[in-house]
Amino acid sequence: MNAPDIVRCAYLELVVGDLAASREFYVDVLGLVVTEEDEHEIHLRGLEEFIHHNLVLRQGPVPAAAAFGFRVRHPRELDRAEEHYRALGCEVRREAPGFRRGIGEVLRVLDPLGFPYEFFYDVQHVPRLTWNYERYGAGAIVRLDHFNQVYPDVARGAEYLEDLGFRRTEDIRDDEGVTYAAWFARKDTVHDTALTGGAGPRMHHIAFATHEKHNILYICDKLGALRRSDAIERGPGRHGVSNAFYLYLRDPDGHRVEIYTQDYYTGDPDNPLVTWDVHDNQRRDWWGNPVVPSWYTEASTVLDLDGNPVPVREREEAREMDVTIGADGFSYTRKGEGFKVGEQL
Amino acid sequence: MNAPDIVRCAYLELVVGDLAASREFYVDVLGLVVTEEDEHEIHLRGLEEFIHHNLVLRQGPVPAAAAFGFRVRHPRELDRAEEHYRALGCEVRREAPGFRRGIGEVLRVLDPLGFPYEFFYDVQHVPRLTWNYERYGAGAIVRLDHFNQVYPDVARGAEYLEDLGFRRTEDIRDDEGVTYAAWFARKDTVHDTALTGGAGPRMHHIAFATHEKHNILYICDKLGALRRSDAIERGPGRHGVSNAFYLYLRDPDGHRVEIYTQDYYTGDPDNPLVTWDVHDNQRRDWWGNPVVPSWYTEASTVLDLDGNPVPVREREEAREMDVTIGADGFSYTRKGEGFKVGEQL
Amino acid sequence: MNAPDIVRCAYLELVVGDLAASREFYVDVLGLVVTEEDEHEIHLRGLEEFIHHNLVLRQGPVPAAAAFGFRVRHPRELDRAEEHYRALGCEVRREAPGFRRGIGEVLRVLDPLGFPYEFFYDVQHVPRLTWNYERYGAGAIVRLDHFNQVYPDVARGAEYLEDLGFRRTEDIRDDEGVTYAAWFARKDTVHDTALTGGAGPRMHHIAFATHEKHNILYICDKLGALRRSDAIERGPGRHGVSNAFYLYLRDPDGHRVEIYTQDYYTGDPDNPLVTWDVHDNQRRDWWGNPVVPSWYTEASTVLDLDGNPVPVREREEAREMDVTIGADGFSYTRKGEGFKVGEQL
Amino acid sequence: MNAPDIVRCAYLELVVGDLAASREFYVDVLGLVVTEEDEHEIHLRGLEEFIHHNLVLRQGPVPAAAAFGFRVRHPRELDRAEEHYRALGCEVRREAPGFRRGIGEVLRVLDPLGFPYEFFYDVQHVPRLTWNYERYGAGAIVRLDHFNQVYPDVARGAEYLEDLGFRRTEDIRDDEGVTYAAWFARKDTVHDTALTGGAGPRMHHIAFATHEKHNILYICDKLGALRRSDAIERGPGRHGVSNAFYLYLRDPDGHRVEIYTQDYYTGDPDNPLVTWDVHDNQRRDWWGNPVVPSWYTEASTVLDLDGNPVPVREREEAREMDVTIGADGFSYTRKGEGFKVGEQL
Repeated sequence: MNAPDIVRCAYLELVVGDLAASREFYVDVLGLVVTEEDEHEIHLRGLEEFIHHNLVLRQGPVPAAAAFGFRVRHPRELDRAEEHYRALGCEVRREAPGFRRGIGEVLRVLDPLGFPYEFFYDVQHVPRLTWNYERYGAGAIVRLDHFNQVYPDVARGAEYLEDLGFRRTEDIRDDEGVTYAAWFARKDTVHDTALTGGAGPRMHHIAFATHEKHNILYICDKLGALRRSDAIERGPGRHGVSNAFYLYLRDPDGHRVEIYTQDYYTGDPDNPLVTWDVHDNQRRDWWGNPVVPSWYTEASTVLDLDGNPVPVREREEAREMDVTIGADGFSYTRKGEGFKVGEQL
Repeated sequence: MNAPDIVRCAYLELVVGDLAASREFYVDVLGLVVTEEDEHEIHLRGLEEFIHHNLVLRQGPVPAAAAFGFRVRHPRELDRAEEHYRALGCEVRREAPGFRRGIGEVLRVLDPLGFPYEFFYDVQHVPRLTWNYERYGAGAIVRLDHFNQVYPDVARGAEYLEDLGFRRTEDIRDDEGVTYAAWFARKDTVHDTALTGGAGPRMHHIAFATHEKHNILYICDKLGALRRSDAIERGPGRHGVSNAFYLYLRDPDGHRVEIYTQDYYTGDPDNPLVTWDVHDNQRRDWWGNPVVPSWYTEASTVLDLDGNPVPVREREEAREMDVTIGADGFSYTRKGEGFKVGEQL
Repeated sequence: MNAPDIVRCAYLELVVGDLAASREFYVDVLGLVVTEEDEHEIHLRGLEEFIHHNLVLRQGPVPAAAAFGFRVRHPRELDRAEEHYRALGCEVRREAPGFRRGIGEVLRVLDPLGFPYEFFYDVQHVPRLTWNYERYGAGAIVRLDHFNQVYPDVARGAEYLEDLGFRRTEDIRDDEGVTYAAWFARKDTVHDTALTGGAGPRMHHIAFATHEKHNILYICDKLGALRRSDAIERGPGRHGVSNAFYLYLRDPDGHRVEIYTQDYYTGDPDNPLVTWDVHDNQRRDWWGNPVVPSWYTEASTVLDLDGNPVPVREREEAREMDVTIGADGFSYTRKGEGFKVGEQL
Repeated sequence: MNAPDIVRCAYLELVVGDLAASREFYVDVLGLVVTEEDEHEIHLRGLEEFIHHNLVLRQGPVPAAAAFGFRVRHPRELDRAEEHYRALGCEVRREAPGFRRGIGEVLRVLDPLGFPYEFFYDVQHVPRLTWNYERYGAGAIVRLDHFNQVYPDVARGAEYLEDLGFRRTEDIRDDEGVTYAAWFARKDTVHDTALTGGAGPRMHHIAFATHEKHNILYICDKLGALRRSDAIERGPGRHGVSNAFYLYLRDPDGHRVEIYTQDYYTGDPDNPLVTWDVHDNQRRDWWGNPVVPSWYTEASTVLDLDGNPVPVREREEAREMDVTIGADGFSYTRKGEGFKVGEQL
C-alpha cells in the first residue's frame, strides 16, 4: 500500500468542559507554552517545539479527543494519505489552510479503527524556546512525545498502523497469541502512538517529555503543594515497556496526560522488537508497583469528523487487568514465583 | 533528668537468617561498604562514614534487631547514661572495649520501652570514602540517617525520648489527642529515630541516605534488573513528614530498609514542630500514593540484653491504617473533600 | 576560654550600591524569598528557612559586608559572648531588640581579626516554605550554608575561631608549615565560616545551598538565557575541599555568592580533619579546572561597628595563587607529575 | 545527486598506541560495553546499542581515526553510495562481509574532504542492555551520539555533506560570510557529524550520550578519584550550539571524546537552522566559560584506505580562536559589551 511518509505525531485537539480550569492545569501547573488563545481555544506547545502547537484545548459540551495530528514529510504526502485512506474505504476530508489555526492544508480521516486522524505539512513556525531557560520551571516540559489509543483488537489495529508505515517497537502478548498492547514509531523514539487493548476507539493518553527524571518528580511535588495530588493517577515510576520514566495525571476533564522521559533510540530499520509477557509483573512498571484499575478502564471519547462521539465497542479478547490481577490473574516477578501485588491492598 | 549528650544514631545490629543472602542484599545490591567480615558477622558502613560501622549483620536463629547504637559526645557521657537509665529502673550493662568489634566501652540498656539501646564514644576510625568516587555506584549510599521504632503508646515513648534529650521535629496526630507517630532528632536532620504507633516494641526500619533522588530511583531500576522488584515494599515517593524522598525495601529476612534523601536542617533549639493531621492523605506520601498495609503492620522483633525476643504489646489507641483507609477511615487531599485512594483497588 | 554556644551562621548584611539591581539579582535571578522590604533594605531567606532572614541588602554608598550574624543556643549566650570578647579586648556593643529587623537583642563586636561579628538568639519566626513547591524554581535555593572570610594570617585566625568553639574540618597547607585556608563548623556541615589567606579582613563570599546539582546547573543556564553569564566567575565544579558541588557568582556590586550542595556530615566531636596539599591541583576543583585569578584576589570590604571600612592588611606568607600557578608555582594531578593547567592559556 | 539513505553514525575505528591503556580508559573508566576483544582489537558499544559495536580500538603504530562508519537504510543503499562517490571521483572499495568484525558488506571511500567514510547495512545484532541496570554505573554511557571532523573549508565541506543528504541544524558564522563550524544530522538529534574549521582533514572528537547530566558530572568525579583529572580537557558545561550538556576528555593517545546529553529533536524536514555569531561568547559554552586553546588546535590524524595518514591542509579563512580571544579577537556576552574571559588568566 502506498502509505504517506509520516514524520511524527504533532498535535492533539482536546475538547474540555471548562477552558479556564484546563488552562490552569496545562499552563499554570504543567507549564506548557501558550502560542495563541482566545475565549474558545488555547494552542499550546512544549518549550523546544517550533511548530505552532502540540495541544489544542477547545471549550465544548462533551470532553473528548477530537483530532490526532501527524506531520508528513512533504505537502504531496497529503495526496498519498488521501489515496491510502480512500483505498481503505474511509471518510476523507481535505480542509483548506486555516481550518486549524497555524496549520496549512489538512487531510482529515476517520480511520478504519474509528479514530480522527489528520495529516498536514504546512505549519506556522514559532520560536523554539530551547535556550530560553528563564522560562523553564522545575518541571519543564520540552516536547510532545506520543499518543496512546484504546482499541478492542490490538492485532488488527497493529496491522493498520504497520501498513501506514509505523515500526512496531514493543508489545505485550501471552502464550495463547493474544496481544494486549503494542507501540509504534515514526520518529526515533519508542513511539508516536500506541494501542492499548480495551473498549474503543478511545484515547488513552497524550504524553509530553521532560529532559530529566527530577523534572517529573517536581511535577508531583508541585501538585502536592497545590493540594492537587489526586490528579496523580499512577506513578511516578519506571516503565518496563519503553524503559521510560513516567507519570500519569488526569486533567480536570479526566483526560489522561503522561509525563515521560528517557526511552531509547529506535530509528534503525531493523530495530529489535521487544515482546513482554503479559504475566511479567515488571512489564508496565519495572519496579513491580501495581497498575491502578482506572488506568486500565477509563479513557476519553473520540469524535468523528462531524464532532460526534464515535461509538465504543468492547474488547472480546482477554483483558490485561483480568489476567494479571485478582482471582483469575497470575503474574510473576521471577518466572515460576509469585509477586508482591497480593500484599498491596 | 541528667541525660547523656547524644551525638547521633550510629549503628544497628541485625540478626539475619542467612548471612550470605543478607550480604548479597546489603553489599552487592545496595553497595554498603564492608569494614570487616567473618563467617558470623559483617560490619558495614556508608561511603562517607568514618566510624567502624553503621550496620552489623549477625547470623542467628531468629531475625531481629539486637541493638540500636548511639554515639555520645564524650566518654564521660556513658556515666551520665548509666545514671539516667538506673534512675529509670532499667537494666544496664557496661561492656568492656571489644564487646562490639571496632567499638570501645559500651553502655547497654533495655530501655523503658523495651528497646535494646546502647551508647558509646570510643570507636575505631576507618577511611571516609567521600572522595573515592571510583567506588560509588549509581545508587551510592553515603550515610546512616535514622532508625524507626514501633511502639504502642507514642505519647509515652515521646516523653521518654524528649527526656533523653531528643528534639521532636514532626508528628502525626488527630483532633481527639491521639498521636500516631513522632520524629526525634539529635543531629541537624529531621530525625535520629522515630516512633511509629503499633504493636511493639519492634523495629520498623533503618534508613540510609543518598545524595540525590536519582540514586534512589536507580536502586529500584537495579532491583528490577535483578528480578527482585518484590523487595520494593513502598515507594519511591516524597514524604509529607520530613519532606524527604524515600524508598522502602525489605531485606531477605523481611527487615525493612529505607533509602532516604533531602530532609531539612533542624539544628536550631526552637526548630518549629510540624504536626500533621492523620487524615491528611499527603502526610505519609506527599503525592497521595497509598501506604501498603504491610508497611503499617509488619516489623522486626527486638531482642533484650540476653538476646531473647522482647514480648510485643498491642496498640490500644486508634491505628493509623484504620482511620485513614477503608470502611471506618476517612482521609482528604483538600480538607472537606475526598481523595484518590478509593480508586486504587 | 568561656566561648558562647554558637548554633550556626544565620545572616549576612550587605551594603549595595543599587538596591533595585541587587533585588533583581537575588530575587528575580536567584529566587531568594523576600521576608520584608522597603526602599532602604530587603530581608531575604532561603525556602527552608524559618528565621526572619539570611541576607539583608541595604542601600549604601560603599559596597561592603556590614555584619556576619551567628545564632546562639540561648539568650544567656549573649552574656558569654560579651565576656569572651571583652576578655579579648574587643569593642562590644549590645543592641536592643529591633536594632536588626526581625531580630531580638544583638551583641555586636569588631572581632580580633577585624570582622563585624554579631550574635543573637531571639528572632521572629516566618513560614518555612519547605513544602511550598509551587514556589520552587528550577534553581531553588533552600538554605544559607556558610560565610567565607579573607584574612592575612590563617593560622592566627584559625586559633581565634577554634577558641570560639568552631571545629576545624579541612585546611590547605604546605610542607613548610604555611596554612593557606581553613574551614570551621558549628552545625553538622563542613563549615559555617572559612578563612581564605589574603589581604584582609575582607569578605570572600556568602554561600547558599540547593538540594541537588542540577539546581546549580540551572542557575548557570538561566544566567546564559538572561545574557548575564559574565556573572559566573568560577565553576560550576566539584570542590576538593568539602566535596561540595559549587558555583561562584558575582552580584551587581561584585560581592561574591557561592551556590553549594552536598558536602558531608561533620557533627562528631572527633570528625577527622582533612588536610590538602596546596600543590594538589584537585584541592580547589576536584576536576582540576583552573581557579581564575579574580577569585583569589578580589573580595568585599568589611565595615566596623560605626559603618566605616576596616583597613586591609596584606598577607605576608606565600600566596596560594603564586605557589600553584605561573612561573614560581608548581602543582600536580598525581604527585611527582605535572598537571593540565599549563595547557589552559 | 543520488545520495544513499543514511540512517545514522554507527561506529568509529581508532588506532591506539597501547591497547591495554585504551581498554582501561574506555572500559574501566568510561564503562563502555565490550562486545568482543582479542589482543589486537576491542569492539565496544553503549548500553542501549543493539548493533555489534560503536567503537573499535585497534593497536597500531600511529594513533589515528581509521574509519567513520555510517549505517544505511537498506543493502541496496551501498550501490547508491558507490555510484554517488564514483560520480564525485573518489576512491571506493567494496569489502566482503567480515572485513569488519560483526559487519556485513562494507562500502569504503576516501571522501572528497579526505575522510575515510564507510557505509554498511548488514550487522550482527547483540543484546541491547537497556534494562540491564545491574550493569549501569553512575556515569552510564548509553549511545554513540556523533562524530566531529576538522576541515579547513567548512562551507565546502557543508556542501558535500548536504549533498550526501545531511540536514544542517546549526552553524557558527560571522558578518563577513565566514563559516567557522557547522552541524549535520540524519537521525533526529542535532548531529551525526559536524565540521570544525581548522587544519584538516582530522578527527576532532567522537561523542557518546548519557541519560542525564549527573552521569557526566560523575565521570569527572571518578576521574578526580583516579587522579586522572588531567584527562578532562574542557567542561563540563552547557553548549550554546546544540544546547547539550557536555564534557571533553582526552584518551591515552590524545583522541578527544565528548560525553554529551540532552540536545533537541531535529527530525522535521524544515527544522529551523540556528546560526550563531562567532563573537557570541555563549556559542560554545552557554555559561561563557573559556574554550581552552588545545580544543581548537589539537585533533587526530585520519587514515586513508590503505592506512596511511591523510595529509593535512591549513585553514585559510579566519580561525575561531583568533577572532574570539586575545589581541585581535573580540567577543561579547551582550552585544556591544565586553565579556568575562579577560579576567580568566
